[in-house]
Amino acid sequence: MVVATERGMRPTDFQKACVVPAPDESKDCPFCPGHEIMTPLEVLAIRPDDTEPNTPGWQVRVVPNKFPAFEYGEEVAPSTPLFPRRPADGSHEVIIHTPRHDLSLATMPPDEVSLVLRVYRHRYRANAENRQVRYVHIIVNHGRESGASLEHSHSQLFGVPLVPPLVQQELAGASWFHTRHSECVFCRIASEEALTARRVVAETSRFIAIAPFASRLPFEVWIIPRAHQESFDLITDDELDDLGLMLHDALGRYHDRFSNPPYNCYIHSAPTDGARYPYYHWHMEMVPKLTTPGSFELGTSMWINITTPEHAADYLSGRSDTGLAAE
Amino acid sequence: MVVATERGMRPTDFQKACVVPAPDESKDCPFCPGHEIMTPLEVLAIRPDDTEPNTPGWQVRVVPNKFPAFEYGEEVAPSTPLFPRRPADGSHEVIIHTPRHDLSLATMPPDEVSLVLRVYRHRYRANAENRQVRYVHIIVNHGRESGASLEHSHSQLFGVPLVPPLVQQELAGASWFHTRHSECVFCRIASEEALTARRVVAETSRFIAIAPFASRLPFEVWIIPRAHQESFDLITDDELDDLGLMLHDALGRYHDRFSNPPYNCYIHSAPTDGARYPYYHWHMEMVPKLTTPGSFELGTSMWINITTPEHAADYLSGRSDTGLAAE
Repeated sequence: MVVATERGMRPTDFQKACVVPAPDESKDCPFCPGHEIMTPLEVLAIRPDDTEPNTPGWQVRVVPNKFPAFEYGEEVAPSTPLFPRRPADGSHEVIIHTPRHDLSLATMPPDEVSLVLRVYRHRYRANAENRQVRYVHIIVNHGRESGASLEHSHSQLFGVPLVPPLVQQELAGASWFHTRHSECVFCRIASEEALTARRVVAETSRFIAIAPFASRLPFEVWIIPRAHQESFDLITDDELDDLGLMLHDALGRYHDRFSNPPYNCYIHSAPTDGARYPYYHWHMEMVPKLTTPGSFELGTSMWINITTPEHAADYLSGRSDTGLAAE
Repeated sequence: MVVATERGMRPTDFQKACVVPAPDESKDCPFCPGHEIMTPLEVLAIRPDDTEPNTPGWQVRVVPNKFPAFEYGEEVAPSTPLFPRRPADGSHEVIIHTPRHDLSLATMPPDEVSLVLRVYRHRYRANAENRQVRYVHIIVNHGRESGASLEHSHSQLFGVPLVPPLVQQELAGASWFHTRHSECVFCRIASEEALTARRVVAETSRFIAIAPFASRLPFEVWIIPRAHQESFDLITDDELDDLGLMLHDALGRYHDRFSNPPYNCYIHSAPTDGARYPYYHWHMEMVPKLTTPGSFELGTSMWINITTPEHAADYLSGRSDTGLAAE
């Protein structure tokens, strides 16, 4: 990752997109109550006992993705040495956060965010039990410019038949650090960031939100549990409540500072392939969509970041009111 | 890379952005003739002998980037084991393709594209001579949605002080294939694609343009030299002329099929670190900006592609007129 703050001075750089719901868009929204028939049948819903599945009344609703990136049983053409193929076995679910079309994780009540995270844990565990699923990837795309195709606030869960390359890299780095320093690199980052406070965005008793040292993109934030925990599904009920507050707070800072920007958010957690990863430590990563990666990033897998993490933390935490890249 | 064509049926997926120049934008354009004073001093220009540097009359002009991502001699704070830092030593140049604000590589005469490529080769060699530069990365960002901050057609050259991760991965794959099969994987791809013709977009005597088997994004195209050549700077004059035709043709297909879309384009070539890479084979990669990668891609470094390369090749070559993802 390359920090080049002077590039932030280019006049047209920040896109300043923001997500403004069209007032009547909920009319045709497949995620709004009363439209349950527009989605595949629900696999889980938080709803009162006296309501039927796939009818209104739910608070959080989980359905298979109608246009799945991964599914079981698809046949593919045979591999050749030059052109290897494999089926994209796996699962792809949608977690609808709230019946309200006009709310999002940043604007709904924090206890409802915790409820969404409780559903994350349930679906994480259910998918992890499948022996073909080697990694469970939970994400939020908020707003069209983030890659979302629907506006109604939702997450997606992918049950992936391999450990993704980026997670493999993080595992390798964490393993190397643990071998060399006999401690978890994420535990160490959490405690050292809390101590210096230079890149801290917010803190609760159980979590710390920081602008990470090697941020790939402007205003990237990580939420790290203070207690060592290799996999997200080990999170306790108390921690879920606390994480709901923290996630609501962090995304609320994006919402307030950048006028409801599009953003990306996902969990990094240990693989679900049956092995143990005691040197790994799950966490959430999020980034507002303010700039457009180009051919440099696409051709190198390196990132040029026009904002320092120290500045990002100052701005998001309220210590500074300067939104642009200058230090 | 995951192929999921059914996801292409989602109603809002293709952005269909197109690049429409504002009629009076050239007034303040730092890359237009007469505005030479708005850029740093030129390091190379193709211009008549009777014109002065940094005045009008040039055909192609190279200047240092005014907002460089890499430059020499910057000081950085000391490293710690947890937070390693290094200076972003290197170079960052801009290659202005044409004095005409209204033209691009797809619409200017093909022999002028060859002239741009000749300038590429010159600047590639000049930067490769610097011992601190371990990789020369030449790119085009066309249109704002591709990451470009200026509209006037131009390329950028980065002299990078390390071998980028994505290039390292390609080198490792090519080395593995060469060890196992005693041939260059790119030579093999070029000959096998030419034979089956299923993913061929266009051909000349010296180059083949294909939709690569493992396309990361819809309508990705690679231009591969048929003759084995590890590094771009080994290209001959005849090959430069032919590559100009081929690049003009391939980008012209994007221009015609997607109404002048934003696109990304770059060269992958052997590192310039003094070592030899006889198993590697330079090539150009390009992709129109039609979809938005989201949190899945950002969190995994995997790609979900809603278009098969066979369909992309059929559409770009004119064998099919169906632009959407269905096979």
